[in-house]
Amino acid sequence: MKELSHDVLSVAIKSRPPHSHKGTFGRSVLIGGNDLYGGAIIMSAEACVKSGCGLTSVITAEKNHTALHARLPEAMVLDWTISQEFNNLVNTADVLLVGPGLGIDSHSQQLLENVLLQQKSSQWLVLDGSAITLFAQNHYSLNYPEQVVFTPHQMEWERLSKLKIVDQTVPNNRDAQKQLGATIVLKSHRTDIYTASSHYRNPLGTPAMATGGMGDTLAGMITGFLAQFETKETALCAAVYLHSLIGEELGQENYVVLPTEISNHLPYYMKKAEGLTRSV
Amino acid sequence: MKELSHDVLSVAIKSRPPHSHKGTFGRSVLIGGNDLYGGAIIMSAEACVKSGCGLTSVITAEKNHTALHARLPEAMVLDWTISQEFNNLVNTADVLLVGPGLGIDSHSQQLLENVLLQQKSSQWLVLDGSAITLFAQNHYSLNYPEQVVFTPHQMEWERLSKLKIVDQTVPNNRDAQKQLGATIVLKSHRTDIYTASSHYRNPLGTPAMATGGMGDTLAGMITGFLAQFETKETALCAAVYLHSLIGEELGQENYVVLPTEISNHLPYYMKKAEGLTRSV
Amino acid sequence: MKELSHDVLSVAIKSRPPHSHKGTFGRSVLIGGNDLYGGAIIMSAEACVKSGCGLTSVITAEKNHTALHARLPEAMVLDWTISQEFNNLVNTADVLLVGPGLGIDSHSQQLLENVLLQQKSSQWLVLDGSAITLFAQNHYSLNYPEQVVFTPHQMEWERLSKLKIVDQTVPNNRDAQKQLGATIVLKSHRTDIYTASSHYRNPLGTPAMATGGMGDTLAGMITGFLAQFETKETALCAAVYLHSLIGEELGQENYVVLPTEISNHLPYYMKKAEGLTRSV
Amino acid sequence: MKELSHDVLSVAIKSRPPHSHKGTFGRSVLIGGNDLYGGAIIMSAEACVKSGCGLTSVITAEKNHTALHARLPEAMVLDWTISQEFNNLVNTADVLLVGPGLGIDSHSQQLLENVLLQQKSSQWLVLDGSAITLFAQNHYSLNYPEQVVFTPHQMEWERLSKLKIVDQTVPNNRDAQKQLGATIVLKSHRTDIYTASSHYRNPLGTPAMATGGMGDTLAGMITGFLAQFETKETALCAAVYLHSLIGEELGQENYVVLPTEISNHLPYYMKKAEGLTRSV
Repeated sequence: MKELSHDVLSVAIKSRPPHSHKGTFGRSVLIGGNDLYGGAIIMSAEACVKSGCGLTSVITAEKNHTALHARLPEAMVLDWTISQEFNNLVNTADVLLVGPGLGIDSHSQQLLENVLLQQKSSQWLVLDGSAITLFAQNHYSLNYPEQVVFTPHQMEWERLSKLKIVDQTVPNNRDAQKQLGATIVLKSHRTDIYTASSHYRNPLGTPAMATGGMGDTLAGMITGFLAQFETKETALCAAVYLHSLIGEELGQENYVVLPTEISNHLPYYMKKAEGLTRSV
Repeated sequence: MKELSHDVLSVAIKSRPPHSHKGTFGRSVLIGGNDLYGGAIIMSAEACVKSGCGLTSVITAEKNHTALHARLPEAMVLDWTISQEFNNLVNTADVLLVGPGLGIDSHSQQLLENVLLQQKSSQWLVLDGSAITLFAQNHYSLNYPEQVVFTPHQMEWERLSKLKIVDQTVPNNRDAQKQLGATIVLKSHRTDIYTASSHYRNPLGTPAMATGGMGDTLAGMITGFLAQFETKETALCAAVYLHSLIGEELGQENYVVLPTEISNHLPYYMKKAEGLTRSV
Repeated sequence: MKELSHDVLSVAIKSRPPHSHKGTFGRSVLIGGNDLYGGAIIMSAEACVKSGCGLTSVITAEKNHTALHARLPEAMVLDWTISQEFNNLVNTADVLLVGPGLGIDSHSQQLLENVLLQQKSSQWLVLDGSAITLFAQNHYSLNYPEQVVFTPHQMEWERLSKLKIVDQTVPNNRDAQKQLGATIVLKSHRTDIYTASSHYRNPLGTPAMATGGMGDTLAGMITGFLAQFETKETALCAAVYLHSLIGEELGQENYVVLPTEISNHLPYYMKKAEGLTRSV
Repeated sequence: MKELSHDVLSVAIKSRPPHSHKGTFGRSVLIGGNDLYGGAIIMSAEACVKSGCGLTSVITAEKNHTALHARLPEAMVLDWTISQEFNNLVNTADVLLVGPGLGIDSHSQQLLENVLLQQKSSQWLVLDGSAITLFAQNHYSLNYPEQVVFTPHQMEWERLSKLKIVDQTVPNNRDAQKQLGATIVLKSHRTDIYTASSHYRNPLGTPAMATGGMGDTLAGMITGFLAQFETKETALCAAVYLHSLIGEELGQENYVVLPTEISNHLPYYMKKAEGLTRSV
């Protein structure tokens, strides 16, 4: 087990090359937000954009478009009807996030299936929230499991791994990871990351972060980091670590830390981390 | 009569246990906001989320969903048609708030009746604004009056207690409280709290807070405090006291204090209060 | 001619009485905002609420409700169809503002006519923007002209007074004011106020304020000040003076001052002005 | 080739004349924002208003109106159906911007054609994003090419000039500019401006600005600067330079700079630039 530290930030968060453009920093497509949980995908989108992803598109129920634009005109939107436009947009992504506020009805299921079938070798896929529940229920297979990240909390991990919470020990989790073949970000008050070869533990986190939407924000950060940084495992670890670091720092002065506040502080904290590195 | 003081904050606002998750801090369901008064339930929701409630859902007219999400993606929304989903959501709540911007038409009445009938022994219920007017008109009974809080201003208290404002003396108010069996937060320039066993007076408050929406914000804070803190009476007193304390402090530099500004400062002031206590 | 000075602020902006509630600070009803100019009435509403009006309701095209709530949940909204609800709400007002973004089509005209016919002896009426143009076109009469304020810029004043801009001299303006019987706030780079007995000149103002929406904000401030302060002429003068004062101060550091920024600073500048006075 | 420097700001950004009103600082009409890319035209509008344009109107898909008003009530909106109102509004403009989030379907094409046909000798026209793509596809002609600005990135410039990116040398670009007759703002990590008589290079810019929406913000700034400043070439150069200057300064403390943050800082940075000049 490797404990994450500040080092992972300085390794992951490279100084940006001077000759670059928005395409250099990746295209993310985020899918979620039904009529009840539109806020979830909005929070993911804010985290993705503010972590520096080059281009962020959100596929969500029509109902959520105005609120998304009112908060974040930087994101593009598409109604989540399955259509040629849907497939085209999914096809352009470097990273796909499916799940925040997705819900588990048959339409949500179709959206997920569609993405699972379309995943290309050049694409990373992050599955969060209801997408994990649907995945667990339906025994889907993955085109490129080594390029898939699941971000379950303990209950969702129980559904996915069939391990009851008491049985979610490190060895059992590692075994379950191997069977899935994907990377697991197992969220709890101390988050663990299981990859094919490693197990990382995040030493940070504060109960001030225990509020609805924190996971949606983390999923958006992971997406944004995967989209722009080359070394995916490091990028993922950095996203998890930084999410908690910002939470802890804001938690020094705030009894509860709102997820959207984490996102608001991303550009500043990423710059501080980058300050420790050299330009590539 | 006990006068509230800073002590109530340090007693109520516990340091959060390190091993916790959003469920630890309660689920609130807020019901209100018709086509005219959507802002009221939005203000309650902001106060509830920013006071640290773990999960906040808002049941309101469809028309208000986009504005709510645009301001507060942390909250979930449900249309306020009475449906299986409505009943399911009400059933999950630790605390229910009914009333801000609810209105008094027959649909509003049905919503209130539904919640009154459903209240379980594990649930607290806060009745504010139009819910108090409806309650007074219709002589409803309460499943668990000892777990109900009414938050009337003096006119609403007249409707509920049948005491004219001039007759709203402490002894009369105590008698009326006993008949209802519920806790009364009687709002005026100095708010009184009547419980089965005690009468508290809030010594704080400023005319800078005399502006529309202040009561909606207080109702949201009470809901959020009841959802997350164990000792309900202390939690309630702390919410009332802190609401006025923040208002007074902001009122030092502002001729009028907007209700949403009270909410924006909640995480900071709660942290300051917590700093005076020890972790449990 | 009296030149306005800081004194008018300390005279108008009284310390609030400790025993007060939102009703103490007046009810304003703002009417305007068609499908094209919704932003205008939103800006008026922000100025009205943030100047400390006790209760602010906005009657505007349905289309504008969500944006208004997203920015300002403190305001109530009503669709601007003429209805019993419309008449009831108009009837409750202490001050009515008609005009910002109203437009000049037949529906807008009907709204204006309705309000003109309804004005009671206890109500003040502020006519701004398109309401002035409509008034000039249709030769309406006023129920209580001494309780009406027109806020024209020079072109609108030409329409209302039939004085070409070159002929808008102080003597001519005073004559025109006498014929109308109402108070005139004649906006230009130095705004003049003509009342039955006086002529005030505002010495402040900056070209940084020359941007769309500044008049809507002033109209909202005038409404809010009339709603809460007893001496109406002083209240009006203070609103005009403070609007420019805030603009000048923000203009020290900003090339252009957005109207909504004026409103955001109202509570702070009003407190500073009040600090110079004694509680009544 | 002239390298832009701080001097261009002090030359372009004049102190505003004391006797002025919103009309003094120009009327801009912005056209764009389809159902997918509404955020783009919102970002342009924010840049235009916050750069000090006197009056800003936005013609966009109905769907985007609420989000625009929620962020920026200072802008007026019109649905983008082609109508008499559309033509009337276009006719009032001092500067027209077409393109941000416009899309390339047949309706978008008709909007563009309409504007191209209507351009008057008194109007400047800025063509950005999809408008450039449509222009390149359809070989339109320009009424007043010397009053047209194209703002392509390198791919769009390839479509417009038929020069492959590797062939986009200064001499080739100058030739292509001459053929078009319009001014070219060729965006890359160092932006070039080609006018009939000059070639300017912007020495500023940071990869922190490489994120979606940055070009929409620049287009809005250019529009706002052209609307209010007399010397158009200098105004254009100042907009390009200041956009990057603000980006660089914010980029000192932020890993990524959001386009809307550039706009938020415009009034402050323009004032700083003006501070170096004398009132005209």
